[in-house]
Amino acid sequence: MRGLSILGSTGSVGTNVLRVVDAFPDRFRVVGLGGGSNVELLAEQVARHRPSVVSVATEAAREALGRFTDVSKVRVGVGRDGMVDVATHPDVRIVVASAVGAVGLVPTYRALEAGKDVALANKETMVMAGELMVAQASAKGCRLLPIDSEHCALHQCLDGRRPAEVRRLVLTASGGPFRNRPRDTFGSVTPEEALNHPTWSMGRKITIDSATLMNKGLEVVEARWLFGVPHERIEILVHPQSVVHSMVEFVDGTVLAQLGVTDMRLPIQYALSYPERWEAAIPGMDFTRSMRLDFEVPDHDRFPCVGLAYRALAAGGSVPAVLNAANEEAVSAFLDGRIPFPAIPESIAEVLDDHRPVSVSCLEDVLEADAWSRERSRAVLQRRSGARAAS
Amino acid sequence: MRGLSILGSTGSVGTNVLRVVDAFPDRFRVVGLGGGSNVELLAEQVARHRPSVVSVATEAAREALGRFTDVSKVRVGVGRDGMVDVATHPDVRIVVASAVGAVGLVPTYRALEAGKDVALANKETMVMAGELMVAQASAKGCRLLPIDSEHCALHQCLDGRRPAEVRRLVLTASGGPFRNRPRDTFGSVTPEEALNHPTWSMGRKITIDSATLMNKGLEVVEARWLFGVPHERIEILVHPQSVVHSMVEFVDGTVLAQLGVTDMRLPIQYALSYPERWEAAIPGMDFTRSMRLDFEVPDHDRFPCVGLAYRALAAGGSVPAVLNAANEEAVSAFLDGRIPFPAIPESIAEVLDDHRPVSVSCLEDVLEADAWSRERSRAVLQRRSGARAAS
Repeated sequence: MRGLSILGSTGSVGTNVLRVVDAFPDRFRVVGLGGGSNVELLAEQVARHRPSVVSVATEAAREALGRFTDVSKVRVGVGRDGMVDVATHPDVRIVVASAVGAVGLVPTYRALEAGKDVALANKETMVMAGELMVAQASAKGCRLLPIDSEHCALHQCLDGRRPAEVRRLVLTASGGPFRNRPRDTFGSVTPEEALNHPTWSMGRKITIDSATLMNKGLEVVEARWLFGVPHERIEILVHPQSVVHSMVEFVDGTVLAQLGVTDMRLPIQYALSYPERWEAAIPGMDFTRSMRLDFEVPDHDRFPCVGLAYRALAAGGSVPAVLNAANEEAVSAFLDGRIPFPAIPESIAEVLDDHRPVSVSCLEDVLEADAWSRERSRAVLQRRSGARAAS
Repeated sequence: MRGLSILGSTGSVGTNVLRVVDAFPDRFRVVGLGGGSNVELLAEQVARHRPSVVSVATEAAREALGRFTDVSKVRVGVGRDGMVDVATHPDVRIVVASAVGAVGLVPTYRALEAGKDVALANKETMVMAGELMVAQASAKGCRLLPIDSEHCALHQCLDGRRPAEVRRLVLTASGGPFRNRPRDTFGSVTPEEALNHPTWSMGRKITIDSATLMNKGLEVVEARWLFGVPHERIEILVHPQSVVHSMVEFVDGTVLAQLGVTDMRLPIQYALSYPERWEAAIPGMDFTRSMRLDFEVPDHDRFPCVGLAYRALAAGGSVPAVLNAANEEAVSAFLDGRIPFPAIPESIAEVLDDHRPVSVSCLEDVLEADAWSRERSRAVLQRRSGARAAS
């Protein structure tokens, strides 16, 4: 029985992690659950899995949790300290880091510091502090396994091959809901349209990132650190069917690709079972039906977020953390109806232009860059939002 | 410097092996060359690579070779004994077995017996005696690495995974030149039409096997022994673009696929460099151009050879060797214009019907099944050929 904690247990990844745990009841014990704002669902999870430690976002949420379920035998923490508690409990062997956004950074880092294996669905963590995370995992001899479908695919294709054997990593992208939408109509994109993803059902923030293709840009950064391959050798390919989840081209010219149904349980189970593979109750590919796969290069003109991510990665140091925070703020402003869709990349670019890159050697440096970026972003977004209201 | 011998050095695989050797002059020394009927080309290869031992098909060919080049410092053998000499020379570390057809069986087996690694392009050897070959390789601790594009792909996707982790192997097929040809026109197929393969440039026998899809059936048998996966878990998928060279579906529902340009040097280099990967001068996939991949199940009605191969594999023992010999004889008869195209599977089925399966425990058993099948096949083909002439 492996002790398991989940940061973000009520999100789309977290609930799928618990489905995988349910499918292998003899293999895992749920030690910790870190929930978000959905206290009712968290209460159900607590009642069912009886963890030792739980975290919620606020004091109010802690009180609400006590009303929904018996928490007399559970330690319930709040905020970042609560999440760190969930991530570092002594009975935990593997932490699933699936909290969305920058909030997952510190608890995930602390998990590695405490010698836990980490299954990572929080790509923002790797974008902000990938180099630090990888160094910490290496120092402690912990596994840092991706749950992101694309990185899970790359991990499977690489399976221990060295970066020197890799000619390039190819991340596939569904292309999002606006793959074929003309550029001159982007100004009228509504949050509802952007939230309507063609293949994956995910959280709101990541779904908007898919619509701007920033999601793919962030994945490039994540791949760079997870696999030690520089950005010049990481490419993006639009593949609308989302059957090929990513590919690796090796120096000898051969390409390995990972294919599968679009079911989050596949990468989750891979990360939790690695280096084994367990028989899954998930249906495989149906090859008896004719199948067609298309691939095309992304349109950087319509999706400037991709270029912004490469730019941040090439600059290095604090810049990826600034990119990440500026993106989170811009997406939030778009979802609130404060800025139009094209202002997402425009405002991020503005923040990047204003930033003086510094090197990062510890989490505090990263958090400082994050804070600076959020403050700057809010000013930029405020101005744009005011301009919009006035227009 | 690894000592290398090539059985079938003048064929399409053999000449590509020498191109790979030329690309890595510091890695290999050509110790032995086994040629076929193209003595002029063999002479060129001897002059260039200065092997220690050479084999030719006949005494006449030996004399001819001496006229084309200086063979005073080369031991030149004839026939099967000559090939065994090439395969077992003490300086040889790896043997490329790329002679076409049953003739490669004994020398390849002797190579394993002598402790050589074998890079195998001769699938007939595995069809006839796969179980014996694998047992011999295992007993001597030798590598048995496939050069066939499909099996090389499977080898890369598996990369050491156990058969128990495999849900199924999926061999892709181009579908051959008659993928879309109506069944009622198969009677009028000419050898020229059948030799016109859409994607691969190969020898005559294997090209006809591609037109009947027997090639894919033989590959199923080969895969069964190379990878230890029973035939119920090996499938064929028609993929006209020949970009995906084969796939493995694992028990957890995930699929790994190997993709590449259709260049024989890729699988050859993989086999010769394994477990390393060397930087190749071969162009990779061009993902900047839009690409479309199609997959469909094969039509067993139009291509009955596939079912015959599964039938032989399920029956086991001597039956696959009988299948292989009956196919070689039928293809030869078709190429000579003695039988029509649909008579290839019909005559093989007739021979299989007539055969009483026996178990095989040594090469002699296999050779006996082979000889029986050829005799029976000739009788069957003679009758059909007579019927054709009379009609």
